[in-house]
Amino acid sequence: MDIAALRKKNPEHWMKAAAIRALTLDAVAAANSGHSGMPMGMADVATVLFEKHLKFDAANPQWPDRDRFILSAGHGSMLIYSLLHLCGDAQVTLDQVKNFRQMGALTAGHPENFLLDAVETTTGPLGQGIANAVGFAMAEEMQRAQYGKKIVDHYTYVMAGDGCLMEGISHEAIGLAGRHQLGKLILMWDNNNITIDGTVELSDRTNQIQRFKASGWHVQEIDGHDPEAIDAALTAAKKTKKPSMIACKTHIALGHAAQDTSKGHGALTDADQMKAAKEAYGWTTGPFEVPADVKAQWEAIGSRGAADRVAWEGRFAEVSTQKQNRFNRAYTLDVPNKLSAVIKALKKQISEDKPSVATRKSSELALAVINPIMPETVGGSADLTGSNNTKTADLGVFDTDNRKGRYVYWGIREHGMAAAMNGMALHGGMRPYSGTFFCFTDYARPSMRLAALMKIPTVFVMTHDSIGVGEDGPTHQPVEHLAICRATPNTYVFRPADTVETAEAWEIAISSKETPSVMALTRQNLPTVRTEHKLKNLSAQGAYVLAEAEGKRQVILIATGSEVATAMDAKAKLEEMGIGTRVVSMPCMELFAQQDEAYRRKVLPAGSAVRIGIEAGVRQGWDQWLLGERAKPGKSDFVGMDRFGASAPAGELFEKFGITAQNVADKAKALL
Amino acid sequence: MDIAALRKKNPEHWMKAAAIRALTLDAVAAANSGHSGMPMGMADVATVLFEKHLKFDAANPQWPDRDRFILSAGHGSMLIYSLLHLCGDAQVTLDQVKNFRQMGALTAGHPENFLLDAVETTTGPLGQGIANAVGFAMAEEMQRAQYGKKIVDHYTYVMAGDGCLMEGISHEAIGLAGRHQLGKLILMWDNNNITIDGTVELSDRTNQIQRFKASGWHVQEIDGHDPEAIDAALTAAKKTKKPSMIACKTHIALGHAAQDTSKGHGALTDADQMKAAKEAYGWTTGPFEVPADVKAQWEAIGSRGAADRVAWEGRFAEVSTQKQNRFNRAYTLDVPNKLSAVIKALKKQISEDKPSVATRKSSELALAVINPIMPETVGGSADLTGSNNTKTADLGVFDTDNRKGRYVYWGIREHGMAAAMNGMALHGGMRPYSGTFFCFTDYARPSMRLAALMKIPTVFVMTHDSIGVGEDGPTHQPVEHLAICRATPNTYVFRPADTVETAEAWEIAISSKETPSVMALTRQNLPTVRTEHKLKNLSAQGAYVLAEAEGKRQVILIATGSEVATAMDAKAKLEEMGIGTRVVSMPCMELFAQQDEAYRRKVLPAGSAVRIGIEAGVRQGWDQWLLGERAKPGKSDFVGMDRFGASAPAGELFEKFGITAQNVADKAKALL
Repeated sequence: MDIAALRKKNPEHWMKAAAIRALTLDAVAAANSGHSGMPMGMADVATVLFEKHLKFDAANPQWPDRDRFILSAGHGSMLIYSLLHLCGDAQVTLDQVKNFRQMGALTAGHPENFLLDAVETTTGPLGQGIANAVGFAMAEEMQRAQYGKKIVDHYTYVMAGDGCLMEGISHEAIGLAGRHQLGKLILMWDNNNITIDGTVELSDRTNQIQRFKASGWHVQEIDGHDPEAIDAALTAAKKTKKPSMIACKTHIALGHAAQDTSKGHGALTDADQMKAAKEAYGWTTGPFEVPADVKAQWEAIGSRGAADRVAWEGRFAEVSTQKQNRFNRAYTLDVPNKLSAVIKALKKQISEDKPSVATRKSSELALAVINPIMPETVGGSADLTGSNNTKTADLGVFDTDNRKGRYVYWGIREHGMAAAMNGMALHGGMRPYSGTFFCFTDYARPSMRLAALMKIPTVFVMTHDSIGVGEDGPTHQPVEHLAICRATPNTYVFRPADTVETAEAWEIAISSKETPSVMALTRQNLPTVRTEHKLKNLSAQGAYVLAEAEGKRQVILIATGSEVATAMDAKAKLEEMGIGTRVVSMPCMELFAQQDEAYRRKVLPAGSAVRIGIEAGVRQGWDQWLLGERAKPGKSDFVGMDRFGASAPAGELFEKFGITAQNVADKAKALL
Repeated sequence: MDIAALRKKNPEHWMKAAAIRALTLDAVAAANSGHSGMPMGMADVATVLFEKHLKFDAANPQWPDRDRFILSAGHGSMLIYSLLHLCGDAQVTLDQVKNFRQMGALTAGHPENFLLDAVETTTGPLGQGIANAVGFAMAEEMQRAQYGKKIVDHYTYVMAGDGCLMEGISHEAIGLAGRHQLGKLILMWDNNNITIDGTVELSDRTNQIQRFKASGWHVQEIDGHDPEAIDAALTAAKKTKKPSMIACKTHIALGHAAQDTSKGHGALTDADQMKAAKEAYGWTTGPFEVPADVKAQWEAIGSRGAADRVAWEGRFAEVSTQKQNRFNRAYTLDVPNKLSAVIKALKKQISEDKPSVATRKSSELALAVINPIMPETVGGSADLTGSNNTKTADLGVFDTDNRKGRYVYWGIREHGMAAAMNGMALHGGMRPYSGTFFCFTDYARPSMRLAALMKIPTVFVMTHDSIGVGEDGPTHQPVEHLAICRATPNTYVFRPADTVETAEAWEIAISSKETPSVMALTRQNLPTVRTEHKLKNLSAQGAYVLAEAEGKRQVILIATGSEVATAMDAKAKLEEMGIGTRVVSMPCMELFAQQDEAYRRKVLPAGSAVRIGIEAGVRQGWDQWLLGERAKPGKSDFVGMDRFGASAPAGELFEKFGITAQNVADKAKALL
C-alpha cells in the first residue's frame, strides 16, 4: 500500500484518520493487549462516516433521533474509543484511552453498552452486531410510522468483518433485512481478507456480493481507503430503498509491518514497528498526543449533530403532550399506570373462572390486556405463531406496507430473532417479546446471554417447556434448559403454574428495566391453582405458600409450572394419610433468592419437614432449596428428569419418568 | 395439481410414491400427531433417489460404504419410516409404523439415530442435518484419500426444507461445503414455499439459487413431482465436482385438501379428507395395507444395494490386514493398545518436569502423543488455531488438494463446526475434536446437545475457560458455561488442573464410545499439581484426594481446573495455622457422581470438616458436593463467580472477584 500517495491525495482526511490509527497503536501498546488491525484498517471509512454522514452529537450521545453506529466487529473497540475521544465525548477522556482494557476503565476490551452511553450495543461475539442492527432498523421503521418522520428519521450503520459474515447469525439477519427492505440499514463490510488463522480463503470462498444480492440488498464495492469513494457509497446507500451493503476493500493494520497479515489482527506492540508506522503516517507527536488542529477538526465533527438535535427538540416540543408522554415513557421503560389494574382484573377473573388452559395460552391472555395499553410492545415468533400464542388481535403485522405493524413473523431464525429483539430494546422506545420452543433456547442462547449482560429487558417467550411436549420427542423436549437459563446471571426465569401466575410473571417481565425474562410455558393444559384472588403479585417474591398443611406440617412440596398441580394432587394424597403437607409454588428462583432471609424462612422454614422439589427438568439448581436453606439433612428428594425425554404421548411420559403425584407422595412418605 | 395426470404419466412410479403418502397419512392419523405434508410432498424425490441412486442395502443398513441419506427436515420422519418399512428394513416392521410416536416405538416423532440403525443422524432442530451432512461428506473425502476409492466411495444425500435453509447454521454449512468443494454432497431442497406461519414470503425472500451459487455450489431447479427430472438432476449432481443443490419444486401434502397450505405441514387426520386423497392417488387398499406388487417393487429397491455390498466386502478382504484392522478399529471406536502407554509416558514426564503451562497447551501435548497413533482423529478450530492449540505437527491441513489432511480450518463457524464434527462421528471411522473459546459454547450449543442425545463421542475443545481470559472482558469470559454443560445429560465436562489431568481427560474422551466430552481449558499458565506420578488415571474417578491434610482434617477444599492451584495455596496457608486441609481435585463431576458411594465417601467423608468449593464459575451444580454427600449443615461455602466478569488483566480479576487463596483460607477459617 502506498501510504505516501494516500497522504498526499487528501492530507486533511489522512490526518484525521491517522489520529484513529495512532491512538489505537498507543492504547494497545499501553495495554499490551487488544486488536490493532481493525481500527487501523477501517479508520478511513469511520472518518468519512462520522465527518459527512452520521447524525451524532457527542455531547448528547443518547438523543433519541441520532443515527445509530454499531461495531459488530467488537474486537476493534479502539475504533469506537478513538472516535469518541476525538469527537469530545465526555466519558471517553484521554485518561480512559490510556487505561484501555484496565480494571474499572470504561474502555473495556470489547465495547460495552452498559459502560459508555455512546456505545449502542455490546459486541464481541461475532455477528451479533449485524443482527442487533436489524432490530435497530426495524425499531426505527416502526417508530417512524407511529410518530412521523419529523420525530423519528435516522439511519443504522453497522461495521462488520469477515468473521461476522461467516457466522450463521449473519444469514438470519441479512435475510430479515432483505425481506423487510430495511432501507435505512447500511452495513459496511471490512473486506480485509484476513482472519486469525490466515487469509479468508483458508476457510471461506463465499462471494459476499452475490450473497447479499440474493437476499435483496443493494450492494456496492469500494476502496475502503479512498475518502471520496466512501462518501459517494454512503450517499448512494442512504438513497436506496433496500438495505445496503458496502464492501470496503481495506488493508488490515494499514501502514504497519503487519499489514495484510493475521498478525495484524491482534496486538501490535513492537516499539520499532510502531515508530515506523507513525512515520509512514506523518504522525510526529508523542504517544496519545493528537495535534491541536486535528483534534479541533474532530471536535467540530463531534458537535456537527448538535444543530440537528436542537432542531429535533423543537419539532418534538410541537407534537401533542400525549404523544410526547407516550414517547418519553417508552424510552424510560416506565409502564403505564393502567398496567397494574388490567393485570389485577385478569387475575381476578381467572381466579373465579378457574379455566384449565396451557400457560402458553395464559400468556396470550396476559398479552391481550398488556398490548393494547403498551404501544411500545412488539411481538413475534420464529415461525410458531399458533404454538407460541404470541400474537394478539390488536398488533397488526409488520411488513413493507405496514410499518405500524407490531407483530413480526421472524421465520425459522431463533438466533436472529433474539439478537434483533435485543437491538429493538437497545434502540429505545420498544419492548420486544417473541417466542419459540423452549428447547430452541439453544439456538437463541448467544443473544439471550448478551441481553443479560447488556441489562436490557428483552422477553423470551419459550413454550413447550418440558416432556409435556409429548410425541415430538427428545429433540423438542427441554430437560436442562431451565438450569441453563437460571445459571445465567441477571436473568429472570419464570415458570408459572397457571394463568394467574403467568399474568404476574408478565407484569414483572414487562416492567423490568434491566433484566431480561424467560417465560417457560407449557404446551399442555393446566388447572388453575390460584383459585383465591390476591391483589398482590405473589410471583414477585419468587416463591410463596400456595397451600398450607392441614394440621402438623410434615412435608413441604416445592414445585414450578406444570408440576405445581402435581404437587397439589400429591398433597391431597398425603393429607388423606394424615400427613400435613405445604405446597410452595416457585415461579421464579432468582426472585426468591433475592428476598430477605426472613421471608425465605417463612416459605421454607427450618425444621424437620421433608422437602421434595418437583420439576420436569434436571435437578441442577434445586439443591440450594432442598439441601440448603436450613433443610434437614437426609430429608429431601427431587422428582424430575435425569436423562433426555422420549417420543410418546405426554401423559405417558410423565408416568414413565415418575413425575406423578403418587411418586411424589411415595417419596415423601419414604423420608418421614 | 393435476394428480390424475401425474398418475397417468408414470403409473409404476406413482404407486411406489403413493405408498409413502398413504403410509404417512395412516401413521399420522393413528398417532393423531405428526407431520404429514413433508413426506407427501417429497415422496417422488425420495422414491427416485432410493430406486435409482442411493447405494443402500436394507438388510445391512450400517455397511460402511453405503451412501448416506439424511433427512434434515426431521419432522418429516414418516418419510424415512415409510421408506425403510417398504424396503424391508428389519427394524421398521408394520407394527412399528402403526405405533408411530408411541411409547417405546422405534418410530419416534423425529428420527433418532440411537433407535434405528438406518437413521444416520437425529434431526428435528432445523438445519442440523445439512451441517451433519457436511461432516459426513468430509469424512468420506478423508477416508477415500486414506483407504482408496475401492474401499470408500459413496455419496451423502441430504433433504432439507425452507426452515433448514433459513437457520443460520445452513449458511455455515453451505459455506464449508463450497469452500471444500464436497462434490459427493447432494442437497435436495423441498421447495414447497410453506412454513408453519404461512408462505415462505411471509418471512423470507432469499433467492436460494443465487445464494448457493454464491457459495460455490452446483445448482439445478426441477419439478419435484417429475420422476424423470428428478433422475436426471440426481445423475447430473453426482457428476459435478461441486457440492450440488437440487431445488425441487414440490407441493406440500400433495393431493390432500390441505395441499399448498400451512395446515398441510402438520397432522392431517380428517377421515374424509384422507379418503379423498387416497382416492385421488388411486390407492384402494385399507389403512397400512400396501398392495403386494408395490411392496415387492420396494423390496427389490431395498435389496438393490446387496450386490454392491458383497462386491465391497470382496474388495475389503483384499486390502492388507493392517489396513483392515485400522479401518475396523476406527469404526468400532476402539482405541489402539498403545494409547495407555503413551498417556502414561506423558504423565510421567510431566510429573518429573513440572512445567507451568496453560491447560490448552497441555491439551496440545496430549494430542501430540494421541494423533500419531490414532489416524482416525480429525482436529480443527473455529479460526482460533493458535489459541485453542488443537493443531499438532503431524495432521496436515484438509483441503481440496489434500484430502488426507486431518486438520480443518473451520472458519468463524462454531455451530457449523460442532454439527459437522457430529456428522463425522456419525459417519463412522472418525474421532473428531475441534476448538473454540469456551464462551462460544453458546454458539455451538444446539449441536453439543445433539451429540449427547445421539450418544456420539465428539470432543469439544473449549479454551479460555474463565475470567482468566482477562482483558477481552465479559463477552469472552465464561461464568455459567460449566453449569450449562454439566446440566446436559450424557456429557463429560472435564476441567483439568494441569497437564497430567489434561492427559488423563484426553485418554477418557478419546476412548469414549457413547458420550461427548467438553474440555474446559485455561488460557493462563498453571503449575503442575500432580507432581507424583501415578500409573492410574485418577481423573477417571471424577475426583480424588490430591493432597491430604497434615494432622487432623478440619477443612476439605474441592476445586477444578485453574482453582486447584489456588486450593493448594490456600491449604498451605491453612496448614501454617495448624488447620489440617485436604485438597480434592474434581476434574469431572459426572464421573465422580457415577462412582459408588464407598469411593465418594472416601473422597468426601462425612463429618465436621468444613467444605469449600472453588471454581471460577457460578455455584450452580456445586451444592450436591457442598450441601449434600453428608456435608455438615452450615459448614460449607463456595468461592467463585455470581455475576459476569469484567475487562482487566486476569490476575487483577481473580483478586477483584475474590478467587484467591487468601479468600479461600479466610472463608474456611470463618466456618471453623
